[in-house]
Amino acid sequence: MKIALDAMGGDFAPDTPIIGAINALKCFPDIELILVGNEPIIKDIFYKKEGSAVEQRVEFLHASQVISMEDPAIDSVRHKKDSSISRCVELVKNGKAEAIVSAGNTGAVVAASTIFLKTLPGISRAGIASVIPTEKNPFILIDSGAIIDSTPENLLDFAIMGSIYSKKILGVSNPRVGLLSIGTENIKGNELTRGAFKLLSKTHLNFVGNIEGRDLFENPVDVVVCDGFVGNVVLKTSESVATAVVRWLKREFTKNPIRILGALLAKGAFDSVKKKTNYEEYGGALLLGIRGTCIIAHGSSTPKAICNAIKVAREALIQKVNHIIIEEIKAHHELVEDQKTSSLPIA
Amino acid sequence: MKIALDAMGGDFAPDTPIIGAINALKCFPDIELILVGNEPIIKDIFYKKEGSAVEQRVEFLHASQVISMEDPAIDSVRHKKDSSISRCVELVKNGKAEAIVSAGNTGAVVAASTIFLKTLPGISRAGIASVIPTEKNPFILIDSGAIIDSTPENLLDFAIMGSIYSKKILGVSNPRVGLLSIGTENIKGNELTRGAFKLLSKTHLNFVGNIEGRDLFENPVDVVVCDGFVGNVVLKTSESVATAVVRWLKREFTKNPIRILGALLAKGAFDSVKKKTNYEEYGGALLLGIRGTCIIAHGSSTPKAICNAIKVAREALIQKVNHIIIEEIKAHHELVEDQKTSSLPIA
Repeated sequence: MKIALDAMGGDFAPDTPIIGAINALKCFPDIELILVGNEPIIKDIFYKKEGSAVEQRVEFLHASQVISMEDPAIDSVRHKKDSSISRCVELVKNGKAEAIVSAGNTGAVVAASTIFLKTLPGISRAGIASVIPTEKNPFILIDSGAIIDSTPENLLDFAIMGSIYSKKILGVSNPRVGLLSIGTENIKGNELTRGAFKLLSKTHLNFVGNIEGRDLFENPVDVVVCDGFVGNVVLKTSESVATAVVRWLKREFTKNPIRILGALLAKGAFDSVKKKTNYEEYGGALLLGIRGTCIIAHGSSTPKAICNAIKVAREALIQKVNHIIIEEIKAHHELVEDQKTSSLPIA
Repeated sequence: MKIALDAMGGDFAPDTPIIGAINALKCFPDIELILVGNEPIIKDIFYKKEGSAVEQRVEFLHASQVISMEDPAIDSVRHKKDSSISRCVELVKNGKAEAIVSAGNTGAVVAASTIFLKTLPGISRAGIASVIPTEKNPFILIDSGAIIDSTPENLLDFAIMGSIYSKKILGVSNPRVGLLSIGTENIKGNELTRGAFKLLSKTHLNFVGNIEGRDLFENPVDVVVCDGFVGNVVLKTSESVATAVVRWLKREFTKNPIRILGALLAKGAFDSVKKKTNYEEYGGALLLGIRGTCIIAHGSSTPKAICNAIKVAREALIQKVNHIIIEEIKAHHELVEDQKTSSLPIA
């Protein structure tokens, strides 16, 4: 399978994506990569980092422009026609690659993918599925920021797609799906969640109802469904709180010699939590619902994170995630039609 | 000043509110309390807990019903006419008390207050202002759950009221106000935040623009403005993440004898963070925008938390928070009128 990698995307590009790419090629003999970006520069780095060992499975595609992290998403996709992000997406559009991996500007990756690739049949909007670590098992948060002002129907699509992701990529057998709201009863929430609750109750999904922010990290569900605005705020707030608490504790640990000694002895505890919450392990978020496979890696991705993002793309392709999404969306609509028919009065 | 206390509200009622009330009466000689609830029971506890020392500043009001934490908010206010919450609110409505303090069902307290007391002139909806601790200074999150599906105009009112709270109760001289969104540029966000951004830019407030979830705990602002649905999710998610991280670390600390020793030596660090993040210190959230003063204490309030909630009510009354809200809302509308007039072409 062939994957297009945005070699110019991320805070440490192009070095980091290229090193990650070389590692991925060494780990997964069944993949081929197209490295997209400023060709002379990325070729130079590729060979300096001893890419020659895997060069038979690599192509280079020149793109003269880069969309920076600060560039406005839609505008930059429209005006920087020769950006590495747009060129990656085009490769998928033209059937020259099956997946895109980028640690670049998230908004631009979403915009380019949805504009150029369109959505899968039966799906009106794409959603970002992020993997959120907890002490026990990670959960999927969808949508964590692809679209804002979504409709109940969008949330239904997110639930079906998130459930497939959980099953196929994370290996959860019967994923529990929860709707993020502000109370557990079905009448609690806003207009959007009340509408989505009704739709979700009529599916074949393992829908457990509303869940609240307070329960998120107690593992009540495997898939958390919400609007992209709320999901993005939750994602970023969670990262912010976790970082703040750990930093605060560390600072308290250095306030006197006894605590410093204690902290040294207990250092492994911090390292262990850090390792499990490390985004590097999860590779990146999957943009679900588009005609193609797109992995959005963290802006500050390390080579390990890039390698894991490529791994996620590979698994999504092997598991035929998009194919299953199309089937399940179709099955859901047939189910709804059946429900309508069976509720008609007998003539 | 006279404050009505819901003696039946909270997970540990009636004991805890009554002990908290006695402590508050001892701390603040200028307050009087009306204890509302099942009179024989609360009187009995009051005297058992040595309330006789402060009995001259206490009245009792019998209420035969209790709204439980699980009762649906609006329905219970409608049907349990003789609940301690409704009776407290009536005391304020009838001018027999100036403030309400309750650790009971938040939804019911909000419903009773907004239904019976109405909003202040110029304010269309009330908002809950919660105090969120950080390592440096706490910030105000408004609205943290009073209303959902709010309008840009509601968010403007929240910003003005939150700013007054920050100034008058937390002593911040020129509170920085931020709009919670998913990107810092003014065009980022949903329909609601884009509308609110425009309105907030035309005020006398120290409005610094959009802030993201990732920055919340870095103290970029003193007042965070958002819709009640988002605010409630953020509030609960933050608590949940902080609890999960600390619990997780503690569990890691006990995984081997060296770490256990380290944890014992460094115990003070955990205690110090716990103390600073303890909701008990902040007493409760203020429901801003109603004709009266209403403090919503945490459901699991301790006597100390109740005492601090009474302290917040007292300060809100001393600082004439409602009076200032009315003045500033009026001043804001005059400013907007002036801006309109000055932008007219000269005849």
